[in-house]
Amino acid sequence: MDDAVLSRRSLFAAGAVGLAVPAIGAAVSWNAGAAHAGATRKVTIYAEALPGGLFGYGLAPGQATVPGPLLEIYEGDTLEITLVNTTNQRLSIHAHGVDYSTSSDGSPLHASYNNPGETRTYVWRSREMFAAAGRRFMPGSAGYWHYHDHAMGTDHGTGGVAKGLYGGLIVRRRGDILPDRQFTVVFHDMTINNRMAPNTPIFEANLGERVEWVAIGHGNLFHTFHLHAHRWADNRTGMLESISDPSPTIDNKDLNPGSSFGFQVLAGEGVGPGAWMYHCHVQNHSDGGMSGIFLVRNADGSMPPGAEEAIHRFQGHTHTTTSQSHDDHGGHGA
Amino acid sequence: MDDAVLSRRSLFAAGAVGLAVPAIGAAVSWNAGAAHAGATRKVTIYAEALPGGLFGYGLAPGQATVPGPLLEIYEGDTLEITLVNTTNQRLSIHAHGVDYSTSSDGSPLHASYNNPGETRTYVWRSREMFAAAGRRFMPGSAGYWHYHDHAMGTDHGTGGVAKGLYGGLIVRRRGDILPDRQFTVVFHDMTINNRMAPNTPIFEANLGERVEWVAIGHGNLFHTFHLHAHRWADNRTGMLESISDPSPTIDNKDLNPGSSFGFQVLAGEGVGPGAWMYHCHVQNHSDGGMSGIFLVRNADGSMPPGAEEAIHRFQGHTHTTTSQSHDDHGGHGA
Amino acid sequence: MDDAVLSRRSLFAAGAVGLAVPAIGAAVSWNAGAAHAGATRKVTIYAEALPGGLFGYGLAPGQATVPGPLLEIYEGDTLEITLVNTTNQRLSIHAHGVDYSTSSDGSPLHASYNNPGETRTYVWRSREMFAAAGRRFMPGSAGYWHYHDHAMGTDHGTGGVAKGLYGGLIVRRRGDILPDRQFTVVFHDMTINNRMAPNTPIFEANLGERVEWVAIGHGNLFHTFHLHAHRWADNRTGMLESISDPSPTIDNKDLNPGSSFGFQVLAGEGVGPGAWMYHCHVQNHSDGGMSGIFLVRNADGSMPPGAEEAIHRFQGHTHTTTSQSHDDHGGHGA
Ligand SMILES: [Cu+2]
Ligand SMILES: [Cu+2]
Ligand SMILES: [Cu+2]
Repeated sequence: MDDAVLSRRSLFAAGAVGLAVPAIGAAVSWNAGAAHAGATRKVTIYAEALPGGLFGYGLAPGQATVPGPLLEIYEGDTLEITLVNTTNQRLSIHAHGVDYSTSSDGSPLHASYNNPGETRTYVWRSREMFAAAGRRFMPGSAGYWHYHDHAMGTDHGTGGVAKGLYGGLIVRRRGDILPDRQFTVVFHDMTINNRMAPNTPIFEANLGERVEWVAIGHGNLFHTFHLHAHRWADNRTGMLESISDPSPTIDNKDLNPGSSFGFQVLAGEGVGPGAWMYHCHVQNHSDGGMSGIFLVRNADGSMPPGAEEAIHRFQGHTHTTTSQSHDDHGGHGA
Repeated sequence: MDDAVLSRRSLFAAGAVGLAVPAIGAAVSWNAGAAHAGATRKVTIYAEALPGGLFGYGLAPGQATVPGPLLEIYEGDTLEITLVNTTNQRLSIHAHGVDYSTSSDGSPLHASYNNPGETRTYVWRSREMFAAAGRRFMPGSAGYWHYHDHAMGTDHGTGGVAKGLYGGLIVRRRGDILPDRQFTVVFHDMTINNRMAPNTPIFEANLGERVEWVAIGHGNLFHTFHLHAHRWADNRTGMLESISDPSPTIDNKDLNPGSSFGFQVLAGEGVGPGAWMYHCHVQNHSDGGMSGIFLVRNADGSMPPGAEEAIHRFQGHTHTTTSQSHDDHGGHGA
Repeated sequence: MDDAVLSRRSLFAAGAVGLAVPAIGAAVSWNAGAAHAGATRKVTIYAEALPGGLFGYGLAPGQATVPGPLLEIYEGDTLEITLVNTTNQRLSIHAHGVDYSTSSDGSPLHASYNNPGETRTYVWRSREMFAAAGRRFMPGSAGYWHYHDHAMGTDHGTGGVAKGLYGGLIVRRRGDILPDRQFTVVFHDMTINNRMAPNTPIFEANLGERVEWVAIGHGNLFHTFHLHAHRWADNRTGMLESISDPSPTIDNKDLNPGSSFGFQVLAGEGVGPGAWMYHCHVQNHSDGGMSGIFLVRNADGSMPPGAEEAIHRFQGHTHTTTSQSHDDHGGHGA
């Protein structure tokens, strides 16, 4: 890392330092560097084979995760990624939302990938909105984006995506509100972050904390992301700009291959702490394992009443995979 | 009902009192009570078995329908629902968009359901938008939402949803324009409101009336809702806030499991009365029975020229269920 | 054509006059006529059988294409289409977004179609936004719309749509920025414009040109449209109205049957020229042939370095159609 102002928010990952809660993944942001615009940030990412046939991106050798680290910059910054391919497969890193030359496209079309064992640098630039002809503006880079392999298995990286080579990328606009917690949720075929219930992530926050969700879709199937007891505006930030902001408020959103969105909620605000569900709302997907827990603890970090029982119920129920088995499970015959 | 200002708009249901048109379903709204904010509204809902293996929610014993009654409150109101389970199944009522404690979540995860024969109260709260950090606002509860079973058959209520336990829920922002008519349209697997053409709902309005559509998606399949000869802004209300409202105008929108949206149109405005089609725009879904009629009568309620023939054609055509049969039906060989 | 101000922008079609680049399709716009509002534009469209069992719409006999010509009017204009059916099939032309009477609906429901050999006139009207009750506005006709057959094969035109009877329709709001280039991209089952890679369209522009994409979905499958190295605001124009426009910026969007959207980008802006990919982001769709090239040439029209090799790679790679074949192709075993 090249920058003294880097703040590494290790989020909810086992062994994370300085956090009371178990953690799932890492993150790199340069928020503290927002004062000086247009900086170049350098980061080394290691693509590694993981147990179970998976692959992951990580910030240091032996630390690859699925999804990979959440990367975060401000509009105007450049991110220079040195990708170290420690695997025996062709792979790359392809970003959505940012500016890159064909040599950093990450696709075999431009021979833009790492051969097995190879190290290669990818440069992602970003910028602010600028005036178009007339009174309109061409949009800047700000958004909840993502990155993924575009070279393993097929020219579209189908093999790498299937095996876990994906992660979140946030480009902030100056003045955006920063969260207390961040979660990356990838709906990928019948999995969440390549896991199925009851092994899906338990995301944790304390009551009232500002929690940022980065939701990404991958693979071949179509999904709808639903979060219980929380809602967000269907726009760039998840919040309303003013009383006349026309954005609808939603709690369920299509999350399909290659798409991503993000939003912030106040954990448990207006509803209280508890083991809230998040899940795909396609019925045979949620029944089949696309369901997880958003654990909102009390403000002091202690467990709220009922949450342990709920998690126990969640973990005790294996998912059902056919509609036939629903009858066995709960009984809904006429 | 606890409130003198309750207005029950019985919509287009057979036997409705005070309406000249046949009707499909019931609705409860407390619009007249908008003057005093933060009121608590109480309603009893009966979950019942229906013919054909269906289940429904109703506002009185023996009055259950598919979809259930359209519920409507203002931001700030609380809705206290006493759910009477008259069936021999475990079931619940789970809402989107509003605030509820874990005990009103409606999910088995929180043991929040009615056992067979049991009565249970669910409390849904709502609120207005409020300032976030910075200049933005956390969104309020206003929206076109829905409710559904979350406990029959599986932990996600797959059995109850499949059998018809769903309905619409509107939370209005103060100042919103009220409609003359309201329709609830649920795209659920290969059905509309658990019916297939030609038995899908015929929604009726008179020319120029302000008609509100509440569209809800359920089940396992993905759909696109299309309405002929009418369009709406793809935002919270379906209307534009100002000349610089950036919302696109559409007449076709994804309607996928767990999602909902709503909008208002002026019936026949600019196009005239007639038997206009609404349908899923996925070709094998519309051909397979996901199609219905929006009958716009003349302003005086009389039938416009050609409408009866069109309805006759619609009812005379059985839907085709395989792409092979298209050749038999219309002939499009080279 | 009835109007001296008509400008026919023939886009990238082989044999186009006055353009240095190969071209794909035709377009009719009356932009130059924007000064006088409410004009009636007349155009004759020929529906024809094409090789390979396809059908197309064209502006003159023998000129039918898939997709058909891109039609373009201003809000307030009326488009009067004389459709000549030169085929031996029942067919029609049904528009999204504009106003039409039941007799111009294009559906068998209203006997609104051309029998084989028949000529029939369809009238599409449009209008500007107008005040609703309260401070809101009912939306006008402006949008990126489309037209398609609604009568061949089934009552929903499934046969005609499957065979290529579709095209783009733009209704502009006065003051909208006009593009230098326009592309129509139809994601239709496993094809792009009824073609599969490597025979999908190569869309071309010079560096810095303002390029307008009109994206349309058709058929039975669901897709996500992704464009490399370019992005747009997810709203009516693809641009931001102001710093407080809440629209998210995206580079991947659901493109499902019956839906359409459009946006403008500056070709290669911030990323440089090159053979950029556009593709469906559903992995087995992109691998299966839903991928194409957006060739951004140098500003002077010359080929940028690497572009020819990239196109050669693209054309040399046959698509893979099963997930099994991915292993053969690139190798991603553990
Ligand atoms: Cu899903
Ligand atoms: Cu459908
Ligand atoms: Cu696709």
